[in-house]
Amino acid sequence: METHDLTAMFLALGVLLAAARGLGELARRCKQPEVLGEILAGIILGPTIMGVLAPGLMAALFPTEGPAATALTGLTTLGITLFLLVAGLEVDLPTTRQHGKVAFGIGLWGMLVPFALGFGVALSAPGLLEQQPRVSPVVVALFFGTALSISALPVIARVLMDLNIYRTRVGAVTIGAAFGDNLFGTIMFATILGVMGAPAQTGWWIGARVLVTLGFAAVMLTVVRGSVHRALPWIETHMSRSSGVLGFALCLTLLGAALSEALGVHAILGAFLVGVVVGDSTHFREQTRAAILHFVSAFFAPLFFATIGLRVNFARSFDWPLVLVVLALATAGKLVGCGLSARASGWTGRESAAIGFAMNARGAMEILFGLLGYQHGIISERMLVALIVMAIATSMMSGPAMQRLLRLERPRRVADYQGVTVFLQPLRALSREGAIRELAQAAGTVAGIEANALEAPLLSSEFAFPSPVASGVAVVAAEVPGLTAPLVGVGVPGGAIDFGASAEPADLLFIVLRSRSASSWQDKILADLARNLMDVRVRERVLAGSGWRDFLSRLKS
Amino acid sequence: METHDLTAMFLALGVLLAAARGLGELARRCKQPEVLGEILAGIILGPTIMGVLAPGLMAALFPTEGPAATALTGLTTLGITLFLLVAGLEVDLPTTRQHGKVAFGIGLWGMLVPFALGFGVALSAPGLLEQQPRVSPVVVALFFGTALSISALPVIARVLMDLNIYRTRVGAVTIGAAFGDNLFGTIMFATILGVMGAPAQTGWWIGARVLVTLGFAAVMLTVVRGSVHRALPWIETHMSRSSGVLGFALCLTLLGAALSEALGVHAILGAFLVGVVVGDSTHFREQTRAAILHFVSAFFAPLFFATIGLRVNFARSFDWPLVLVVLALATAGKLVGCGLSARASGWTGRESAAIGFAMNARGAMEILFGLLGYQHGIISERMLVALIVMAIATSMMSGPAMQRLLRLERPRRVADYQGVTVFLQPLRALSREGAIRELAQAAGTVAGIEANALEAPLLSSEFAFPSPVASGVAVVAAEVPGLTAPLVGVGVPGGAIDFGASAEPADLLFIVLRSRSASSWQDKILADLARNLMDVRVRERVLAGSGWRDFLSRLKS
Repeated sequence: METHDLTAMFLALGVLLAAARGLGELARRCKQPEVLGEILAGIILGPTIMGVLAPGLMAALFPTEGPAATALTGLTTLGITLFLLVAGLEVDLPTTRQHGKVAFGIGLWGMLVPFALGFGVALSAPGLLEQQPRVSPVVVALFFGTALSISALPVIARVLMDLNIYRTRVGAVTIGAAFGDNLFGTIMFATILGVMGAPAQTGWWIGARVLVTLGFAAVMLTVVRGSVHRALPWIETHMSRSSGVLGFALCLTLLGAALSEALGVHAILGAFLVGVVVGDSTHFREQTRAAILHFVSAFFAPLFFATIGLRVNFARSFDWPLVLVVLALATAGKLVGCGLSARASGWTGRESAAIGFAMNARGAMEILFGLLGYQHGIISERMLVALIVMAIATSMMSGPAMQRLLRLERPRRVADYQGVTVFLQPLRALSREGAIRELAQAAGTVAGIEANALEAPLLSSEFAFPSPVASGVAVVAAEVPGLTAPLVGVGVPGGAIDFGASAEPADLLFIVLRSRSASSWQDKILADLARNLMDVRVRERVLAGSGWRDFLSRLKS
Repeated sequence: METHDLTAMFLALGVLLAAARGLGELARRCKQPEVLGEILAGIILGPTIMGVLAPGLMAALFPTEGPAATALTGLTTLGITLFLLVAGLEVDLPTTRQHGKVAFGIGLWGMLVPFALGFGVALSAPGLLEQQPRVSPVVVALFFGTALSISALPVIARVLMDLNIYRTRVGAVTIGAAFGDNLFGTIMFATILGVMGAPAQTGWWIGARVLVTLGFAAVMLTVVRGSVHRALPWIETHMSRSSGVLGFALCLTLLGAALSEALGVHAILGAFLVGVVVGDSTHFREQTRAAILHFVSAFFAPLFFATIGLRVNFARSFDWPLVLVVLALATAGKLVGCGLSARASGWTGRESAAIGFAMNARGAMEILFGLLGYQHGIISERMLVALIVMAIATSMMSGPAMQRLLRLERPRRVADYQGVTVFLQPLRALSREGAIRELAQAAGTVAGIEANALEAPLLSSEFAFPSPVASGVAVVAAEVPGLTAPLVGVGVPGGAIDFGASAEPADLLFIVLRSRSASSWQDKILADLARNLMDVRVRERVLAGSGWRDFLSRLKS
């Protein structure tokens, strides 16, 4: 590569990443999936907008031929592979097994019905779905069916957490079903893409291909899974703490991708299965998972999703009827498949519909598969755009729909709390113990209780279970027998207080004192506190305020 | 890229990374720099060894032309850029300023003398240095002089830490000098490479180039540094915690690299300066630095250093006389330059020589610059091999030379300790408090001291400053008035004990009780404990043992 190509490569990467990260963050702030902003970045920089306004600039920034373009393609392909590694790491085999029968039923019917719907419509009305001329109608129908049947595990997990029902039975079953859905969906996609990539396609040959794919998946999930589980402790012990397992996981991913490509399956399957296999081992550390996740979501994923907009003209290929048909088929398929299966397992109608809407979220996986189908010539550009819009729309509707269906009351908020509170800013104390004492004393004075009666339980609770400091916030809670109303104290230290329990010091301290007969109401307040204060923006606002009323209003806003 | 090219790319990346990580870890275990193993991986897989034994296999694995080769080049170039980002993040401007005058003198003379030596020899004996025909002798002399004058900051920092003198005056001054050395060395290299990359080269033109480079560096280190420092808190507050700053730093790196390439300076300078600028901000979090460092050292750096061996035939180009001349010039230059400057600032002869040997370590930076010079046609393949050997040899000799010169006694080891000890395996207690009590009681019984006299100080010290758990080890230390000999207790809990102070639970607990007149001897024992037990391998051995003697012998081995 010459100097000119290098400049072009760095510039293209830098501009794409900056736009994708910026708009991705904007989407996140609007409580939308980040992938929406990342795709938007590509739409703005690509033929849809910049290609119309400044075609020369676009051609200069993002050359479509030459070494810089090849290097960019190689890098985004690597990005897809690592994204699938992350997706695989999310799959939790034990959870899938635990809620086995019910989750399996919902997952299975949630795939079969949309698949049958998509397959049938594609075969019976090829014109509607922009049938590509040179591709076998059966392959297109298979692809379209699979595209409708996949769910987006990360989106679903996020929605369930936001609604605070991740740990409920509805949450667990939905996640279990989504895990299975992702596993089988990925295998099907990789098989279809592998079949498409090959020149000859007889029935026997395709059958052999499918058998090879299933064999590959089976070997990965049994033999390789066992070996990795046994190898990880050795690597942890004998290799560098920071990069030993990380390097090992990345090697496996690359080799898995190469092997699955060589077997005629798409590279994504190898990478995804490596993720499942590595993530399943109890010896795989959360830190390593986070290291991969952070780098992929800050670098590779934004680059990859932004390049979609560079290749596709969204304005030209946006086809309302097609978009609506795809959206309707996708939603109907999941609602009927998952909903009826859930209803048959004894859930109420509302719960069943909520599960259906959760599983209906398609998210980034769908977009990735759509793009690969487009690149392999299976679907048209208009169909790709319709799939992308469907993926984003179903992801955006799942949260609100579930909340309404399950009649979830808005989570109880700190701001609603009207009990005895003290707010001290700044705290005089500079130590953890002193700060707790100071807040307890103030709360005692306000509530007319001897300070020591509050201090002692707080300190002994803190001693027994030191509060971790998360995002600069420490919450110390204790039960006080005989307390008639709960007490909340908020303190803003003059300087950050070292809580010892974490490397991070605390710049905001809460004490929560509750009677022994703690109602769930109080737990909700605590949960809301935690949720709110983990959000850096809220914390910043809170720290800038003064006084309890102001504090509440800032929490509310 | 076609399926075939993708398979080739993934396979090449996977095999390279596996070999580089494996041999890198092997080198680390032999207490050698990891880059040695990584280069060795390339030598084995490249023309030096595999090219002789199985040339067909090598050609198939690592194609030199086509999309896969281009993608690989693009990726390793990105790797170089991110490696320079990490190098820049290591530079600590305040430390450089703090020991300003002395460090500056040592750094300056440590660059000037080797530079003059290299420049002079290159000009006067062009044949000796494998003068390339089509390159101006002045440029070659400039390059060779700069190549001799650069020091390896990461290697030096590691050696100083290993010898336990990082925080001494010798350590601080050496690090300060190395920071400055890296900063100016990188600027010079980038300028030379930029000048080389351009077609026309008149005196005026080169002068203008140099001015542009210096101006770029100046703007980065002032205006951009200030803006980044102000921007970081906003990003932390408004963007995603995990990928906000990470994505921002990576964007800046790519754009900085593109800008410096566009200005006619090499991309490495932009990336390096972004690292310096971002790392200098007090708002830049250690976690983000670690995330970048881990991913680069587990993925990009091994890939890049291994590809060197793919391009160069080490057997054919290994030239003993040239290697020895380069090694002698490099070592003499640094020893004379740094040593005399240190001596003139009032250090003893031995200290001055030790500083000289520390600064003599060249490490990975030298190798990277050598490769770039080779790619730009400034130096021959034999010269590149000589520079690589020199870089590794100087890195390997600096530690032992310093230890001998400074007459550093072997650090005092736990294994030498002969005082009162108890070793309990397994501990019955399952809580932190219980485990401390149990060990204190046992130690009290053995030493004939009332248990409470030991328990209370330990518990109150633990309450005031909870022990962080590092690598599964917790050390609780306290002073006990009137204690005649120090007491050490070691406990291996039945199950991991939650220390609360860290997310990680402890599977090994130490208590150390010392008299108030704690001698430095005791501190050394503690330091040795910490150093040893941070090492996962040692810990694993220790946990497998039983009894104090066995424990000591395992620590010793």
